[in-house]
Amino acid sequence: MNMTHPFLDVDGDKLREECGIFGVIGAKEAAAITAAGLHSLQHRGQEAVGITSFSGAEFHSHRGIGHVAQVFRQKEVDTLPGSMASGHVRYATTGGSGLRNVQPLFADLADGGFSIAHNGNISNAMTLKRDLVSKGSIFQSTSDTEVIIHLVATSRYPTLVDRFVDALRMVEGAYSLICMTTEGMIACRDPLGIRPLVMGRIGDAIVFASETVALDIVGADFVRTIEPGEMVQVDHKGTISSHRPFGNPSPRPCIFEHVYFSRPDSVMDGLSVYQVRKQIGVELAKESFADADVVIPVPDSGVPAAIGYAQESGIPFELGIIRSHYVGRTFIQPGDAARHADVKRKHNANRAVVEGKRIILIDDSIVRGTTSKKIVEMMRDAGAAEVHMRIASPPTEHSCFYGVDTPERSKLLAATMDTEAMADFIKADSLAFVSIDGLYRAVGESERKKSCPQFCDACFSGEYPTKLTDFSDRFPELDAA
Amino acid sequence: MNMTHPFLDVDGDKLREECGIFGVIGAKEAAAITAAGLHSLQHRGQEAVGITSFSGAEFHSHRGIGHVAQVFRQKEVDTLPGSMASGHVRYATTGGSGLRNVQPLFADLADGGFSIAHNGNISNAMTLKRDLVSKGSIFQSTSDTEVIIHLVATSRYPTLVDRFVDALRMVEGAYSLICMTTEGMIACRDPLGIRPLVMGRIGDAIVFASETVALDIVGADFVRTIEPGEMVQVDHKGTISSHRPFGNPSPRPCIFEHVYFSRPDSVMDGLSVYQVRKQIGVELAKESFADADVVIPVPDSGVPAAIGYAQESGIPFELGIIRSHYVGRTFIQPGDAARHADVKRKHNANRAVVEGKRIILIDDSIVRGTTSKKIVEMMRDAGAAEVHMRIASPPTEHSCFYGVDTPERSKLLAATMDTEAMADFIKADSLAFVSIDGLYRAVGESERKKSCPQFCDACFSGEYPTKLTDFSDRFPELDAA
Amino acid sequence: MNMTHPFLDVDGDKLREECGIFGVIGAKEAAAITAAGLHSLQHRGQEAVGITSFSGAEFHSHRGIGHVAQVFRQKEVDTLPGSMASGHVRYATTGGSGLRNVQPLFADLADGGFSIAHNGNISNAMTLKRDLVSKGSIFQSTSDTEVIIHLVATSRYPTLVDRFVDALRMVEGAYSLICMTTEGMIACRDPLGIRPLVMGRIGDAIVFASETVALDIVGADFVRTIEPGEMVQVDHKGTISSHRPFGNPSPRPCIFEHVYFSRPDSVMDGLSVYQVRKQIGVELAKESFADADVVIPVPDSGVPAAIGYAQESGIPFELGIIRSHYVGRTFIQPGDAARHADVKRKHNANRAVVEGKRIILIDDSIVRGTTSKKIVEMMRDAGAAEVHMRIASPPTEHSCFYGVDTPERSKLLAATMDTEAMADFIKADSLAFVSIDGLYRAVGESERKKSCPQFCDACFSGEYPTKLTDFSDRFPELDAA
Amino acid sequence: MNMTHPFLDVDGDKLREECGIFGVIGAKEAAAITAAGLHSLQHRGQEAVGITSFSGAEFHSHRGIGHVAQVFRQKEVDTLPGSMASGHVRYATTGGSGLRNVQPLFADLADGGFSIAHNGNISNAMTLKRDLVSKGSIFQSTSDTEVIIHLVATSRYPTLVDRFVDALRMVEGAYSLICMTTEGMIACRDPLGIRPLVMGRIGDAIVFASETVALDIVGADFVRTIEPGEMVQVDHKGTISSHRPFGNPSPRPCIFEHVYFSRPDSVMDGLSVYQVRKQIGVELAKESFADADVVIPVPDSGVPAAIGYAQESGIPFELGIIRSHYVGRTFIQPGDAARHADVKRKHNANRAVVEGKRIILIDDSIVRGTTSKKIVEMMRDAGAAEVHMRIASPPTEHSCFYGVDTPERSKLLAATMDTEAMADFIKADSLAFVSIDGLYRAVGESERKKSCPQFCDACFSGEYPTKLTDFSDRFPELDAA
Repeated sequence: MNMTHPFLDVDGDKLREECGIFGVIGAKEAAAITAAGLHSLQHRGQEAVGITSFSGAEFHSHRGIGHVAQVFRQKEVDTLPGSMASGHVRYATTGGSGLRNVQPLFADLADGGFSIAHNGNISNAMTLKRDLVSKGSIFQSTSDTEVIIHLVATSRYPTLVDRFVDALRMVEGAYSLICMTTEGMIACRDPLGIRPLVMGRIGDAIVFASETVALDIVGADFVRTIEPGEMVQVDHKGTISSHRPFGNPSPRPCIFEHVYFSRPDSVMDGLSVYQVRKQIGVELAKESFADADVVIPVPDSGVPAAIGYAQESGIPFELGIIRSHYVGRTFIQPGDAARHADVKRKHNANRAVVEGKRIILIDDSIVRGTTSKKIVEMMRDAGAAEVHMRIASPPTEHSCFYGVDTPERSKLLAATMDTEAMADFIKADSLAFVSIDGLYRAVGESERKKSCPQFCDACFSGEYPTKLTDFSDRFPELDAA
Repeated sequence: MNMTHPFLDVDGDKLREECGIFGVIGAKEAAAITAAGLHSLQHRGQEAVGITSFSGAEFHSHRGIGHVAQVFRQKEVDTLPGSMASGHVRYATTGGSGLRNVQPLFADLADGGFSIAHNGNISNAMTLKRDLVSKGSIFQSTSDTEVIIHLVATSRYPTLVDRFVDALRMVEGAYSLICMTTEGMIACRDPLGIRPLVMGRIGDAIVFASETVALDIVGADFVRTIEPGEMVQVDHKGTISSHRPFGNPSPRPCIFEHVYFSRPDSVMDGLSVYQVRKQIGVELAKESFADADVVIPVPDSGVPAAIGYAQESGIPFELGIIRSHYVGRTFIQPGDAARHADVKRKHNANRAVVEGKRIILIDDSIVRGTTSKKIVEMMRDAGAAEVHMRIASPPTEHSCFYGVDTPERSKLLAATMDTEAMADFIKADSLAFVSIDGLYRAVGESERKKSCPQFCDACFSGEYPTKLTDFSDRFPELDAA
Repeated sequence: MNMTHPFLDVDGDKLREECGIFGVIGAKEAAAITAAGLHSLQHRGQEAVGITSFSGAEFHSHRGIGHVAQVFRQKEVDTLPGSMASGHVRYATTGGSGLRNVQPLFADLADGGFSIAHNGNISNAMTLKRDLVSKGSIFQSTSDTEVIIHLVATSRYPTLVDRFVDALRMVEGAYSLICMTTEGMIACRDPLGIRPLVMGRIGDAIVFASETVALDIVGADFVRTIEPGEMVQVDHKGTISSHRPFGNPSPRPCIFEHVYFSRPDSVMDGLSVYQVRKQIGVELAKESFADADVVIPVPDSGVPAAIGYAQESGIPFELGIIRSHYVGRTFIQPGDAARHADVKRKHNANRAVVEGKRIILIDDSIVRGTTSKKIVEMMRDAGAAEVHMRIASPPTEHSCFYGVDTPERSKLLAATMDTEAMADFIKADSLAFVSIDGLYRAVGESERKKSCPQFCDACFSGEYPTKLTDFSDRFPELDAA
Repeated sequence: MNMTHPFLDVDGDKLREECGIFGVIGAKEAAAITAAGLHSLQHRGQEAVGITSFSGAEFHSHRGIGHVAQVFRQKEVDTLPGSMASGHVRYATTGGSGLRNVQPLFADLADGGFSIAHNGNISNAMTLKRDLVSKGSIFQSTSDTEVIIHLVATSRYPTLVDRFVDALRMVEGAYSLICMTTEGMIACRDPLGIRPLVMGRIGDAIVFASETVALDIVGADFVRTIEPGEMVQVDHKGTISSHRPFGNPSPRPCIFEHVYFSRPDSVMDGLSVYQVRKQIGVELAKESFADADVVIPVPDSGVPAAIGYAQESGIPFELGIIRSHYVGRTFIQPGDAARHADVKRKHNANRAVVEGKRIILIDDSIVRGTTSKKIVEMMRDAGAAEVHMRIASPPTEHSCFYGVDTPERSKLLAATMDTEAMADFIKADSLAFVSIDGLYRAVGESERKKSCPQFCDACFSGEYPTKLTDFSDRFPELDAA
């Protein structure tokens, strides 16, 4: 446990801040519903999970390292009584130290308990923390989210909600939040709505979640999307009120949620994620046809685009790569005897549909390029005659500072090579990415509006929609942002 | 721990004997290779795993409850030195008692150590055990496999191999075995070859495994299938010898391996499992076309047949059901609020491709019918206009006594209803199964030979190819077998 | 985990605040030395233990529930590099919540890391906490010690040491503290010196500990006792400076450390604890002789007084009660069959020296009286002809608010009965306590000075030497203090 | 796990076979009573413990590594229903492999379940095992006790009891056994009665235990000692029958049980262990007086003899060494800074009674001599003027093959040096052992009968009372036995 470690480390763990959040108020067994909801959001954060509940007088909490189904068995859920609960799934480092960062975070404030679950990343957290510590605040975690709690605790405004708004006006970056006080639940989304948040209803209970799939799994009806910059309060009687404390800036929701991050059965800002991905495949087939025998997805994320590509092109869709359901992360690496065993444990060639064929391989994105290279090689080892790689997103040239795990720029293949060089690197016969306008067409826009893009697409365009105070000295090119 | 529990319990755990086995001789890091191989066979048994290695003078063993990647981390593999190793994945009950049944089983015989890993089920084990115990043998597990060890230990034949053959001549049922002695490895398959077993090679090392996918993952080349009734010995110098101690009965390999049990990227008796399943979909489309808008697989096992059905019928293939990667088995069940949460945690409707559509739903089999019923209901809840269920196997009317987990007959839906009644039960607009001859066509036969079927298809036909001594009194209808 | 639980609970866990502290600066393997030192202080707190070390740039910490030898094995000690370390043993509740209270507590202050280990109890902690929270401080533990950290963090004085003195001037009660900053170690004792603290030396390294036995075990030479109200600073070069920030009040060290709490092989304020206890036995024999056959100690704490009593009276000393070395705290209680098994598991009568004898039974104190009653009964069951109980301390009539675990007054037998009634209650033939002046004689004083007692003897006299702000409303009789 | 390891290893773990056994039949909560009884026998084996119960139809078992209080909490006891139970405490190696050796051992024989708990050591176990394995018996543990089970299983006698007697007639060495069958409990002691066994009664229930202290702790009345060579059967109705299947050889109970092994509050063959030890101190004082200031015991085992020595000599008894209650076995060893920390963690000098004094140090025995050497040095470091060591047993010159943990001869100090050389080695001013006749006087004999000693005193005399088949080739000097 390294207690003086700075909590923002661009090169290290900090950017692994993909998260999922869920909350419910007004329901029997609120913690059990939250566990089920988080289970459906497990793809957003697989390393740690926590749930906090409120039973009328007291807050209760349990947090752990692992999957939802491991950390929350019946006996743990039974320790979390009450009709209001919220939870969080995240990446986290292992061990005791890591547990301190597992959300929801909780504090006993002067007005009573305050719990917070956060999806996103605050881009001036380090700067704010330095100031708070100099005035006597003592931090217990290395999470950027803790900054919000201390800003609330030290705010001079009269009510807890006023202090919360006061705190949020000081932070920059991306955040969807689900908070709990003794009065009820507060859900809010940053002014640009970079990270998603939806509202649903089960009977009299109100539910908030990162994605609609979490509403499906708990049997809730979809009510509406929380608007960018909106703050929704629900009290224990079920009264709902909505506020817009940040005015009305133009929204910039993250387009990468559609490309990769959300589950295909979710509906994001009114669009089916599955249909968007399939449509990207259609756009790809129009933009970058290849004469081939079969269309093969890299499972599972490449499957919808491959179906779209196959339908548009008329080339048959086949499962040429089989994905194992049992991928452990710290698996044994036998030495010389089994080359590429790490890739093969996850993906194995289905030689029967690859051998002798010209194949079109569909994947969602290329980050470092190492996996793509291994998969192309695996296809050739299985007898592929030609391998044409098609990518269902534009080249990923820039790091994300809003909560998606991307490595620093220098490790992004597309930041250092053009498409032709990338094709050589991964040893594909051809390589093409969907165009940025093709991507915008797939989400229902006629084109990307250059002056005012409809989405945050900074990972493709480098146009960051907020200030990045903590990172400005390291990334001089961001000063323009 | 109930130490006097009879070890053959038809209604209970005993039939959950699906297993995978793997062995390697002549390789550095034999245990690490075995762990990698077992990982690719994890679908054959997900509850317990064990590996035994031989380091020239001594045998070493580690066994545990859980997945391969959990039980065998680097530190456990490091306790298993030597150039020969074998392992086993299986279903098992939890706890200390269960651990005694985790294979490979090991015994110190008069000739030295003897290790055995078994896939299959011995149908006269209870009878043999009674006799052995009366003569002074003390059993430590409730596994049918232990019978073989005691038969070897008490045989009067002069050599260990002779005693092993003597033992196998006394057992009936299904078995593929990988055994280790101080002299080397012995792999063998029962006279009918009911369970599979293949041989491969990595450099000078010889590998045995239940499926070819395990050869792929360890970088081994496929050599050949072990023949039904064949016993292959490999010594530490790499000398290979083959024996046929049981004569030459007609083979009856399990056809259900093709339908459901094996991985689609395996090649079973010369046939690509994926292509067989896709071809079953083609046969289904020919036999039982339905006028519909989309073909939707129940993932993942229904996908190849759905691709085949879609290609043959010309109806588009779509992912109308999304499968979660994170299905924990002891998950929380929130009460009224979330009906069908157990099914939804595994499968969720993708409303965008279901709503308003007439759908053809493809699944691999119907056992109890409860899951099919819930999935049909899920499709209707998602707005399906019509639901036509098509099953990629004939009706499962009979229990398996050869190592596949099927419930007792009375719980098999097809044993108590005809197809029309089953359609009503699951509330489908129509229901059809592939015919038994359609299934045989998919595996490359022109038809099923009635007098002498080419496969064991007892679960569909009730024609058991061996005696079932232990079960004959409970199942009078088996007497004919 | 109940996060809103008030952290000062007179009737509950809070008073179980017996603790031991240890620190070393300037030594290789500082954490290993600290673990050894804490092991010898284990009798001062058996439920939880923590060590924090400083390796020049960073602080490292490990804490756990259990004994020192369980929590600090080689691998845990290896995670604590550096030449400065301090640690703490304490009572604690089990579970994750309890772990937050295990000391040393640590905070990242504006000047860098600050670690604190505390033996004692702050009697206005609740009052101070309320004020700190209202200004924005967020507490993470329910320990009174955390108040000191927040007082330091929010103090406006320029240097860390000034802020530390500023903080201590606000607290009342008993404390011996070992703190670490990046600059070095600070050891201090409250103005009255209620809890002990000594300084030793190993080579160039300086050691602080609650008792001299911890110096013995790490091979350190005793240097001197830290004076009441003294603050000693040691920097990384070994420079030692001493301060007296609180003036020079008359010391009032806890006399109960001599009677019961310290180890007999420790030297406390210049007096051998063993010799003091033996001398109490001598005083008891002079004050309360009984005509008997044997002197029997209640082991282990009654042994030295029994030796003194036997030597003074000439009656033979015998082990009439055998103490088990294996007393588990959550042991099984078989029902009717084994009455008093709980006492017998710890103490068993040695019938051979009890049967038919008139015995003098020596114990250190009577708290609730239930144990004494059972032991007298055990002696009679073993055939004792007469049982004369002699107690090596005055009657315990008052609760301790300075860190010794005593129950609330109403549960103290001596607070509700006179000596005769107590003798009846425990069914002894006679009962006598050493007089308060006899106790003072045993510690080398001619008598207790009424106007200004030389020790804190509040548990016997009710004269509390400090204010008790947090407790004044519940204990009106304390107002006089 | 080394599965081919020979199970009798003179130099290794095998001789660590000190054990305690306990059984009860006819009692409610039999397992809870057994846990309490084993707790009082914990000093006979501290590393592993097991209990087996019988609930009328089935046997239930739980075993674990650790102390009784750790392994048997309420929840484990609750898994052991029934009115008959027996248990065992022992030394054991850690890990999964070790668990197989934890007793009671259990087997399903043709007549039903058979459980066995064994204190002692069978000196022809290896020879018998070789023969059994050659006939087909498969061993699961490396315990000598398992030989008895296989002898029973393969015996041709008609009844289970006959087969049990048949088996015991084949074994040589020392054994006290508590067995359970579906019919009831069988307790027996080897023909010479080397290891102890007593019978007690609680109401209608019958109890068997290694020592009387276990009767005390469960509230049982002492009935009688089981005679050497006696076999006592108790059925579920409470009918007791006694048999003498081995004739009437002269008894040779282990004299070391009195010297060291038993608890002082036990009564062994009619003698109070405490009084015997005190009397040894008296004999020592008569035989080997030293002119000194204080008598100091090495706690705890030296205390009774020191009291006897002090009373006989008139020299004051003082606690000059304080023993810690918290001795962990795998404790940290800080390097140079803390010499002799390992001894100090267990024993610390009480300088106040040692400094400047001539001391007589009383210990129970000298084995390797290393501990004695360190303790003498500790006394000198604490200022002792003279150190006279007195040992409450004769020199330990020979290994024990009957279940007491002694190292091989070459490591026994007394096997390689005379008393004067030993005094030099441990750096004592003088050293004396009680004479063998002094020891016999302390147990109430006038002298040791040379032709036919009344006890097994082989560790002192080298006269082994049984054959030692397995050891004869390694110890040619034993051939005479």
